[in-house]
Amino acid sequence: MGFRVWPDVGARDEIRYALAWRQQPGSLAGLPNLRAILVMGAGVDGVLRDPELPASVAVLRLLDAGMAVPMAEYALHALLHFHRRMPDYLAQRRESKWQPLPWSLVADWPVGVLGLGVIGSVIAQRIAAMGYPIAAWVAQERASDDIQIFAGRSRFDEFLARSRVIVNVLPLTPQTENILDARAFAAMPRGGYVINIGRGAHVNDEDLITALDAGQLAGAMLDVFREEPLPPAHALWRHPKIIVTPHIAAPTIVDTAEQQIIANIERLERGEMPIGLVSRERGY
Amino acid sequence: MGFRVWPDVGARDEIRYALAWRQQPGSLAGLPNLRAILVMGAGVDGVLRDPELPASVAVLRLLDAGMAVPMAEYALHALLHFHRRMPDYLAQRRESKWQPLPWSLVADWPVGVLGLGVIGSVIAQRIAAMGYPIAAWVAQERASDDIQIFAGRSRFDEFLARSRVIVNVLPLTPQTENILDARAFAAMPRGGYVINIGRGAHVNDEDLITALDAGQLAGAMLDVFREEPLPPAHALWRHPKIIVTPHIAAPTIVDTAEQQIIANIERLERGEMPIGLVSRERGY
Repeated sequence: MGFRVWPDVGARDEIRYALAWRQQPGSLAGLPNLRAILVMGAGVDGVLRDPELPASVAVLRLLDAGMAVPMAEYALHALLHFHRRMPDYLAQRRESKWQPLPWSLVADWPVGVLGLGVIGSVIAQRIAAMGYPIAAWVAQERASDDIQIFAGRSRFDEFLARSRVIVNVLPLTPQTENILDARAFAAMPRGGYVINIGRGAHVNDEDLITALDAGQLAGAMLDVFREEPLPPAHALWRHPKIIVTPHIAAPTIVDTAEQQIIANIERLERGEMPIGLVSRERGY
Repeated sequence: MGFRVWPDVGARDEIRYALAWRQQPGSLAGLPNLRAILVMGAGVDGVLRDPELPASVAVLRLLDAGMAVPMAEYALHALLHFHRRMPDYLAQRRESKWQPLPWSLVADWPVGVLGLGVIGSVIAQRIAAMGYPIAAWVAQERASDDIQIFAGRSRFDEFLARSRVIVNVLPLTPQTENILDARAFAAMPRGGYVINIGRGAHVNDEDLITALDAGQLAGAMLDVFREEPLPPAHALWRHPKIIVTPHIAAPTIVDTAEQQIIANIERLERGEMPIGLVSRERGY
């Protein structure tokens, strides 16, 4: 089975599987024998936005593939960083200022995770293991033994109202774009925190800055942006209450991703059900 | 039972219990009916250093008393901060610089905890739960089901050699003072990290700075110091690879400490064994 790198695809009818990540629109069209599009990541928004994406071909995404643990590390670090007032202590350090600050117990830091797929579940479990009260918001109703679930838009405000910190790992779909906007921030307790490791387009940047400036939010740690790299002149870089990192929460681990993609192709070749099948309708 | 605040102790023969924390030397002498000295903290070095401390009176220290969890939060935050290269990303942020850096798996970050009492055990468990390979160094041999133990000075170098990060929560005794010196840093893998939440006097500050400047160590996060508050002109404040915090890893939680102290007095009054009995010989 040969391996061809776009645009040198050779005879188009010989292509049976495509590996994709933010492909050029149209590049997957006109492949008459394409059986599956294997996305080299967990989020498929960059693949599905292609208007010429063949409608009847299965799109498969990575599930975990080693990304869940680093995402949980990033989220837990950000949470501890805010909970233990490290931005303040790092600022005091720059002035050689010794000033212990008021302190609060983990019980006073309810955390809400937006999205509870494979990655969100690992994040929620790790945060819960540190003693933080945890809940998750999901689009569709489901059961969970150990995590309090708020399902659907009708329970979104209730979820936000009990969450001092929110951690976003939602898939990006037309339904979740701009979900973290002025309305959402206003529904959170005053002085809340936002950790975004989903997609930049989940957050309305202007609303975030307004909420931080007004004190409705106390801080944000952002790893994903509408435009990446984040342009040097962007206001998010310079805001004193925002910590920007360059999309490093979880690199795709090549070995693990490769194994999962190969295993999925083998399943398809044997006529078995692949894992990570994306619903075009849901968008993830 | 009355409660008197030193130096207004009234009739000295009426004092049966003393609450102490870095007391003025001699202040606990000449109390003929003193039954126990109840230390308002987990570390007793500040109480035992009093040369006039009555030799035959029981010294009781706090065990956990709510401190173990915040200590573990501090240690895990520091560990994630170094592992996920946050000092570098915070520096890049100040320059609006987008540059993902090489990344490493949790398996490449073996952590060594110095001291495995109540607090050290909780720290080790929490760090292990995040997937870090963990070991502990203790003065005396003991068994552990889940944590690799290195006991005694004879195995100290072996312990250091396998620890990319060390977390110190040892009690301060004549045997552990300056235990983290040039020799210890040289025994660690090159590019290691030091997290100190024990006592300032465990670390030789000059050796630490030398090891950081030489690249033998890559970073340190320090919460305790020989002199507290750390003087504004001290070199530890300004070193670019050292993060100083003002002894905030774990505040004594008044309610919990109070309950533990009252329960211990009640045990003594009933003629039962108290908890947290300090060995003067061991020093903890």
